Amino acid sequence: MKESLDFIYKEQKELSHFGGIAALLGWDQMTYMPQKGSGERAEQLSMISRLAHERVISDEFYNHLKKLDELSNTLTEKDRIIVTKLKEDVEKARKVPSAFVEKMSKTTSLAYTAWEEAREKNKFSLFAPHLEKIIELEKQYCDYIKLPGHPYNSLLDDYEEGMTVDILRKEFGALRPQLVEILKKITTSAVYQKQQPVKMKLGVDQQKELCSILLKQMKLPADRSRLDVSTHPFTTTMADDDVRITTNYEREGLLSSFFSTVHEAGHALYELGLLKGEYKNTVISDAPSLGIHESQSRLWENMIARSKPFWTYFAPMFNKIAPDICKGMNKEVWYHAVNQVRPSFIRVEADELTYCLHVILRFELELDLIEEKITVAELPQCWNEKITDFLGITPKTDTEGVLQDMHWSGGDFGYFPTYAIGTIYASQLFKQFLKEHTTMRKKISQGNFTAILNWLSEHVYQYGRLMTADEIIKKTCGEGLNSKVFVTYLKEKYYLLYEV
Amino acid sequence: MKESLDFIYKEQKELSHFGGIAALLGWDQMTYMPQKGSGERAEQLSMISRLAHERVISDEFYNHLKKLDELSNTLTEKDRIIVTKLKEDVEKARKVPSAFVEKMSKTTSLAYTAWEEAREKNKFSLFAPHLEKIIELEKQYCDYIKLPGHPYNSLLDDYEEGMTVDILRKEFGALRPQLVEILKKITTSAVYQKQQPVKMKLGVDQQKELCSILLKQMKLPADRSRLDVSTHPFTTTMADDDVRITTNYEREGLLSSFFSTVHEAGHALYELGLLKGEYKNTVISDAPSLGIHESQSRLWENMIARSKPFWTYFAPMFNKIAPDICKGMNKEVWYHAVNQVRPSFIRVEADELTYCLHVILRFELELDLIEEKITVAELPQCWNEKITDFLGITPKTDTEGVLQDMHWSGGDFGYFPTYAIGTIYASQLFKQFLKEHTTMRKKISQGNFTAILNWLSEHVYQYGRLMTADEIIKKTCGEGLNSKVFVTYLKEKYYLLYEV
Repeated sequence: MKESLDFIYKEQKELSHFGGIAALLGWDQMTYMPQKGSGERAEQLSMISRLAHERVISDEFYNHLKKLDELSNTLTEKDRIIVTKLKEDVEKARKVPSAFVEKMSKTTSLAYTAWEEAREKNKFSLFAPHLEKIIELEKQYCDYIKLPGHPYNSLLDDYEEGMTVDILRKEFGALRPQLVEILKKITTSAVYQKQQPVKMKLGVDQQKELCSILLKQMKLPADRSRLDVSTHPFTTTMADDDVRITTNYEREGLLSSFFSTVHEAGHALYELGLLKGEYKNTVISDAPSLGIHESQSRLWENMIARSKPFWTYFAPMFNKIAPDICKGMNKEVWYHAVNQVRPSFIRVEADELTYCLHVILRFELELDLIEEKITVAELPQCWNEKITDFLGITPKTDTEGVLQDMHWSGGDFGYFPTYAIGTIYASQLFKQFLKEHTTMRKKISQGNFTAILNWLSEHVYQYGRLMTADEIIKKTCGEGLNSKVFVTYLKEKYYLLYEV
Repeated sequence: MKESLDFIYKEQKELSHFGGIAALLGWDQMTYMPQKGSGERAEQLSMISRLAHERVISDEFYNHLKKLDELSNTLTEKDRIIVTKLKEDVEKARKVPSAFVEKMSKTTSLAYTAWEEAREKNKFSLFAPHLEKIIELEKQYCDYIKLPGHPYNSLLDDYEEGMTVDILRKEFGALRPQLVEILKKITTSAVYQKQQPVKMKLGVDQQKELCSILLKQMKLPADRSRLDVSTHPFTTTMADDDVRITTNYEREGLLSSFFSTVHEAGHALYELGLLKGEYKNTVISDAPSLGIHESQSRLWENMIARSKPFWTYFAPMFNKIAPDICKGMNKEVWYHAVNQVRPSFIRVEADELTYCLHVILRFELELDLIEEKITVAELPQCWNEKITDFLGITPKTDTEGVLQDMHWSGGDFGYFPTYAIGTIYASQLFKQFLKEHTTMRKKISQGNFTAILNWLSEHVYQYGRLMTADEIIKKTCGEGLNSKVFVTYLKEKYYLLYEV
């Protein structure tokens, strides 16, 4: 037993190292790598992934786990928890043949290149045959995993353990018409009619200074993290004490770097705060789901950084650092500016209200594709119809529509829903937090986020994978995923903003 | 045969990837890694080194190589060259037991910490017992490798293949008294007596701009390289098309960042120019020795960037970018300023003339330690006596003397000589180059380095390990290592500068 325990702990530790190394290879690729380094970098990354995957699915690893599982009642509680979770993960990974993993990797690699070309030329037909192959592989994958219920459950489960199509159909089915309704009320309001787009671009140095103040207030530890620059902002973890975020100071849009920094810092605080101690370098020291992860970034980005008290503190900061550009912007003006609703085509640029509609659209289309209700050839048309239905606007090109992002070329089916799940979770967590901390708005208006950090640490960070996402939300908020809370939050905020 | 060839090519490629990954982990540690990331980074690095080492010494690899070696006369020339060199490398690596490698790694890790403390407290006795252990291990290592002649040959060979104590004793034995003699003539000259230290510190932005101009003139390809910041400047290779150098803008000393950038760019140009094509990702696409590598950095740093024509081009650049600081500095003043001779204690800050004396001092002390002519306890005293002999100055503390750098704590015995070998090679290469290119000084004075780059590519870069260092120098310069050429170069330059 001792030998098996030693083996699985060593293996988990080395798998953590493989993960950290892959994260560094990826981070560097997105931030500092010279342009021509990309060819060999791809090979280095794929070698590391293969070596790690070989270990996860090795018979030696599995035999040790089976042995420990049989001796389960003689294990300490900690060991038992780890063995159980690890065996689940390993059994799932072993369901998928290595040849399939390699085929998927090659297919998506070609699909990515095709997608880039299709997007540039606005020609969906260049991408379509690749997407068809990917969908075939996704269905094949569902066959390997074979979770109960809808085949798509097997895809969902990779990102949101335990989540099902039934639950999401219910929640998204209720959420979607309400979002459309709120949006309609807003776009027909007098305030909306008079609304002017906020055109404002801070200098790079000004943006940097503001991001630096922000991270200090959010207490992101400087000796355990960094902020760098990449085209698309992201968060990545090299080690327990080395979590990095990126932003982009050149992006269009009001305060894009500032809000992406809040968002990624929310992810990073979670990663840095995750359960460690005796669970360090084990399968338990991780997030239970992407939805929970996203709830942490959305909570900071939307519930906090787009709240009025937040701008009580930050409006003077902006005015101080960029007095010319921010002239006449008091906290009220800022609050309105950062909460403008404006239906648009591109998900990543969407406002807080319409964002989830973009996500639900993908979920519905993914289900239709997996269920063979629609063909890939029909996809652009279906996309355009849906977005017209949801947002009242119609893309002029497929680049603005179905080709807008790379996710489908990467085979990330089942992934989009986590964005909406995270947003709903965020609203539930924030509601509960405000109930427990009645003076919170005042503290936020002083730039003091200690209470929320401590609360998140106690109610989310510290669990790691000791509980599922659903269990964490139920324990903290008294109920599981509930989009009604999100709808109430939106109505309270946006009806007031738009005087509806 | 096909199977064995496939195996060894795949293995070399993956070993290149391991090397590139380790390089990135190390580069990041020195440049961007958050402070607290160091613990897990050390584990990641040691895991990668272990995995690579396991492959190098694996029986499977060796058996394929032996098989191919037996079939040697049926191989293509390229395959034969690769198999021969690879088998040599692998056989050498297999002489050293893994347990020894691990023991050395642990010993040097503890020794590094002890050295840091000893240096800070100026207390050699804290470091001494660790150094004793390291020297025992070095001797053990010589026993494993067992090259003919002096035991130290086995240490030298790791850095300078084929180099021996006999050759170095002859060359360094001749070089040392001549350097001391030149130094004496200079320090007693009237020019030296009147010489004022050049105190000048450019702003970080000014230094950056000058380094950027420099790299552009040196034609370091921007899409295949980068310049970053670290405490100690270095060059490292992530991939064939991704070589990175660092500098330090905060260091004391005249133009420290500028000269370290020239130096590292010299290394980087070599790495980027190394034999590729059919030899890409093989054991042949590498430098044959550290001496040859160092010859590339020293040639650019000293023979070019400390030459008068170089300052014909760069003096106006400096004056343009930092007009206040560089007021009154014409090319003559610059030339004198960057070539001041000034005996000092710290090797890395030494001038061109005295630098090799620091290196020869280490070589002599390493030999004495390996031959047990002196004990570790006597080392500080011996150091001080030697440096007094060589440079006429005596360290006041061991931190200024024997504890000044970390190399011995890392077990790098046999490594120091390559600095002097490289410097001598550089003078030989440069002499030959000038003989073939009579208009070169004029081109350098126009900031045009194309001819020297092409010449180095043809005479050094393109060989990779197809020839040994000695063969490259002999083929190009008509003779092997010859310190007389270096002495002549020094006399011509410094007697004129100091009007001796």
